[in-house]
Order: sequence, then C-alpha cells, then structure tokens
Amino acid sequence: MIAVLAGGTGAAKFVRGLLEVVLPETLTLIGNTGDDVELWGVHISPDLDTLMYQLAGWLDEERGWGVRGDTFACLATIGRYGEPTWFQLGDRDLATHLVRTNLLRRGYSLTEATAALCARLGVRARLLPMTDDPVRTYIHTPSGVLAFQEFFVRERWMPEVMAVEYRGSERARPAPGVLEAISEAQGILIAPSNPITSIGPILSISGIREALAERRDRVLAISPILGTEAVSGPAGKLMRACGYEVSPLGVARFYAGIVGRILIDDQDAGWREAIEQVGLRVFTAPLRMTDRAAAIRLARAAIACLHSEA
Amino acid sequence: MIAVLAGGTGAAKFVRGLLEVVLPETLTLIGNTGDDVELWGVHISPDLDTLMYQLAGWLDEERGWGVRGDTFACLATIGRYGEPTWFQLGDRDLATHLVRTNLLRRGYSLTEATAALCARLGVRARLLPMTDDPVRTYIHTPSGVLAFQEFFVRERWMPEVMAVEYRGSERARPAPGVLEAISEAQGILIAPSNPITSIGPILSISGIREALAERRDRVLAISPILGTEAVSGPAGKLMRACGYEVSPLGVARFYAGIVGRILIDDQDAGWREAIEQVGLRVFTAPLRMTDRAAAIRLARAAIACLHSEA
Repeated sequence: MIAVLAGGTGAAKFVRGLLEVVLPETLTLIGNTGDDVELWGVHISPDLDTLMYQLAGWLDEERGWGVRGDTFACLATIGRYGEPTWFQLGDRDLATHLVRTNLLRRGYSLTEATAALCARLGVRARLLPMTDDPVRTYIHTPSGVLAFQEFFVRERWMPEVMAVEYRGSERARPAPGVLEAISEAQGILIAPSNPITSIGPILSISGIREALAERRDRVLAISPILGTEAVSGPAGKLMRACGYEVSPLGVARFYAGIVGRILIDDQDAGWREAIEQVGLRVFTAPLRMTDRAAAIRLARAAIACLHSEA
Repeated sequence: MIAVLAGGTGAAKFVRGLLEVVLPETLTLIGNTGDDVELWGVHISPDLDTLMYQLAGWLDEERGWGVRGDTFACLATIGRYGEPTWFQLGDRDLATHLVRTNLLRRGYSLTEATAALCARLGVRARLLPMTDDPVRTYIHTPSGVLAFQEFFVRERWMPEVMAVEYRGSERARPAPGVLEAISEAQGILIAPSNPITSIGPILSISGIREALAERRDRVLAISPILGTEAVSGPAGKLMRACGYEVSPLGVARFYAGIVGRILIDDQDAGWREAIEQVGLRVFTAPLRMTDRAAAIRLARAAIACLHSEA
C-alpha cells in the first residue's frame, strides 16, 4: 500500500505515471481541500476533482484540470446574468459538483461523497479528502485577504503575498482513514505539489504531521522545485513569502521533521550535502514530466527511492 | 395594463403574439409555480422560466421550453454518475437555476429573484410568481402520488389520474403585486394553458379567486380546448379526471364565477348557447397558433374581446 499526499495539477501528472507502476487498488490519495470553494451553491473541490478525473481517465491533461472535451455553455450564460465568471466551471465538471453537493445535503460527509463519486466512475484507487471539516486557504495581500481561488484564478496569483492562512485547521480533524493510511502504508509519497498551498493545508491538520513524523523514514517528498524555480504555478512565490528559499533545499527545510527522503532533479545534485544536513536522504532523477513516459519513469524512480535501504 | 394568468408552453406561445400587440411595459404575467421542482439542490421554476425566456427572446420556440440552442453536457454527465436524467436540464438553462437558487439562498423571495433575473436579461414586462410560498401540484394515480414533473415528464402523462392536489395552497398567500395586478388591470387574460395544472394552482391560492370574481366582466379566458381535444398536452385527460367535460363548455364550467368572457375557436360556435347559460359571454376566433402571425392574430382578438362592450 502506498499513500500519496496530493494537490491538484502537479499531483495528477505524477499519479498518471504512478497508475502505470502500481496497482490502483494499492493507492490511497490524500487530497488537499484548502482550495475548496462554494459558488452558486455548489461545493467545488478542485484538487479532489482533478485527482478523481485523473483516476477515472476523464482529466483534460492538456489543461491539467477539468474534464476532457468539456464545454462552458452554463458559465457563459451565468455571465449573461452579470455574475462573475472567473472560475472556469465546465458543463461536465458542473455535474460532479451538483451530484457531490446533493450528496452533502443528504448528509454524506465529504469522504463519503468522494467515495460515492469515485465508485460511480469505476475508480479503483482510494481518494480521501484530508478532512471532512472546513479548512480554507486564505492569502493575505496588501489589498486584503483573498480566498485561494480568488488569488490563484481570479487574480492569476499576481498580488504580493504577505502571509498564508489555513483557516479552520485548528479545529479540523483528519478525515476517516487518513491517519490509518499514513500509519499502514509501506511508503508515503508527497507529490510534487505546491508545498505551501497544496501540501501545507494537509499538514496543518492536527495529527497528520505527527503521523508522518512517526513514519519519517518511509516518507518521500518529490521536489516541485527545479533549480531555483517551481515547475509551474506560484509555488516559488509562496515559498519565498513564507520564508523558504526557492530551491530543493527550501523544500527540504519545509518538510524537515516529517520527511526522511527527498527526490530532487538530477541537475540539482549540488544541493545534496546541504539537504543531508537538514536530515533528509537525497535521491535524484529527472523530475520534468514532459510526457507520459517521463511521468512513468518518475513514478518508478519514486517507488524505488521509497524501497531503497541504501 | 393587462394581467395574464399563465402556465408554460401554451402561455408562452400566446405571449409571443401579445408582445406584438401591446407594449411589454403594460403586461404583468402571473405564472404558475405548482410545477416547480428542486433537483440536485437547484430550484427550477419551469413555467416562470419558459415565460422569462419568451420575454427575453431566449425561448426555444420549437420545443416550447428551454433556451434556444442549448446543450445537455451537464445532464449527460449527471447520467454518467448514475443519477436520473428524465428532467431535461440544459446547460444554459441550468445557469438560470443556479443564479436563481443563489439569490433564494441569499434571502431573496421568489418574486424578487424572478425580478432580478428578468432585469438582468432586459425583460420589460413584469413577471410574477403566483406565490412566494411552496405550492406543489401532485397527481394521484393508482400506483401512487407523483409530483407534477414526475407525472408529466418522467411518466409522459401516461398514468391514470385519480385526483389532482395543490399541496401547500391552503397556507399560501398571493405573491406581492398579484392581487393588485388583478384589481388594477384594464383586463385580465387567462392564457390557453391547462386549466387543471397550469391555471388551477394559481386559482387555489387564497384571495386570487375572489379578486378575479370581482373583476369578472374584465376577465377573458382563452380556451385551450378545440372541439373535444386539448390543443396539446394532458389538459383533456386532467379535465376529464377532475369531472369536467373536454370541450369549450367544460372550460367555461371550470372558470364559471371568475371569468365573464371566453374566447373559443370559430369551429366551436355551436357551444355558444350552452356556455352563455353558464354565464359567460362568448367570443370566437381561430385559436390555433400555427405560426407567429396566427399568435399575433389571436392576441389581437383577445384584446378586442376584452374591450368589447357588446
């Protein structure tokens, strides 16, 4: 059994490779819900959706989110009513949100609703939200506090970041199965997701950090930073804002104490010694998932690192 | 000022003609909400939607409901999740329901939400729901009680009808503006809608029947029955089940006491005397709205009947 802590797009790319290397039945994905948002009364879980679509073979892999071949007729009409349309809500994607929201209103927990959606799509891997409680990532900027999707999508992550807040995390409990998945897995992978806003919310929930620390030598983080830049998205900007160097060493420092192993890019081998001083064992491999084959190679390398006793 | 009691498809066809004959600003449509249904958490008002789309120029006039050129990607995906898809929910149409439901959750009444939607689409006529309170039409059949949409859409109005119930009507009050529109209008038209399930729910609300009775001589019903058959839909079946003859005379008897004038088809002039004995003045015109020109002619005839002092 392998557990994976996962955000959205980057994690989904990695999972695409992983599904070719291990049986889906042996995978438990623990997804970030700090990005969740309610719009027009529907509960949207962008990271869980991206992961589920990948697991179901529905993901639009070019965009990295949403359903392949989706259309946006509903959103365009919402715009005709003068409502904001910055959140890209596909017509097929909306079906997921409607069915999920309906299950939640009928008393399902987010864990149960996610399991029901996955089952109906024939997904064989297990997908868990990090928590059933509301935890929401807020970005503090000079002009005010923004919900994560407002910062990321509406403002295209342009505003200066002063602080990142995981609102609700102090009262949130891990979703059923999360701590068990971490305790019982042969290995735990931290996907190459944004440490601050994809993995950070997961780590902010009471008990998860401790569970990882106990399995530390079996926890492998895959760096989302190559050299001194994020593979994609605002990971670099957010790490810097939170006081972390944008480098594999910065990633190692962010995960120090809960991660025993880190996989960094071949070209970043120069950081090996500095990272080892933080207490992590360092592995290298080509990290860029330029195509399906590269994603499979990376997944294979990650599994090998987990099992390495060297 | 003209007030129109209206159902969905048949009324929308009539309104299409009416909009060419009177200024939209002088029209108040009072729409049936007995067909309303909540599906996947969204509040759907089929008759109000059909009327609003007609007023906004959005109506798919071939189908008689929904938005012209709409697609059904969301519904198809809802089906992939194993959910029932008998209710035809278009992607563009869904935007209306999402925006409306969002307004209702924010505390708008259905009257206010309807006004807001209409304003955003540039509708100049006034569209009022019959009530802001929940009134729902149920059809009693030998195999159980069906909500109207279940009977009409899912079961294609096949089941035998034992009784029709307007659930909630005993506690419902007319929406703000409804009684005033009836009292103050120069004339009140009852659209050629299904008497039992389109107009019946409106009449079931306390005060509306009395307001119409007071203006009786200024109230004109346009018969939805030609000869001994409904122009379309289950009007005949439902009238028979409720003990009314399926004929212009049956319509006259249904509306007796609240309607002073009735417009029946030229070919049905043979019923004139019998209808006059029920206490209604009878006018005749070609009732079939086979095209736009015919709808305009019918609207013009209806307005003339209202004003006739003969």
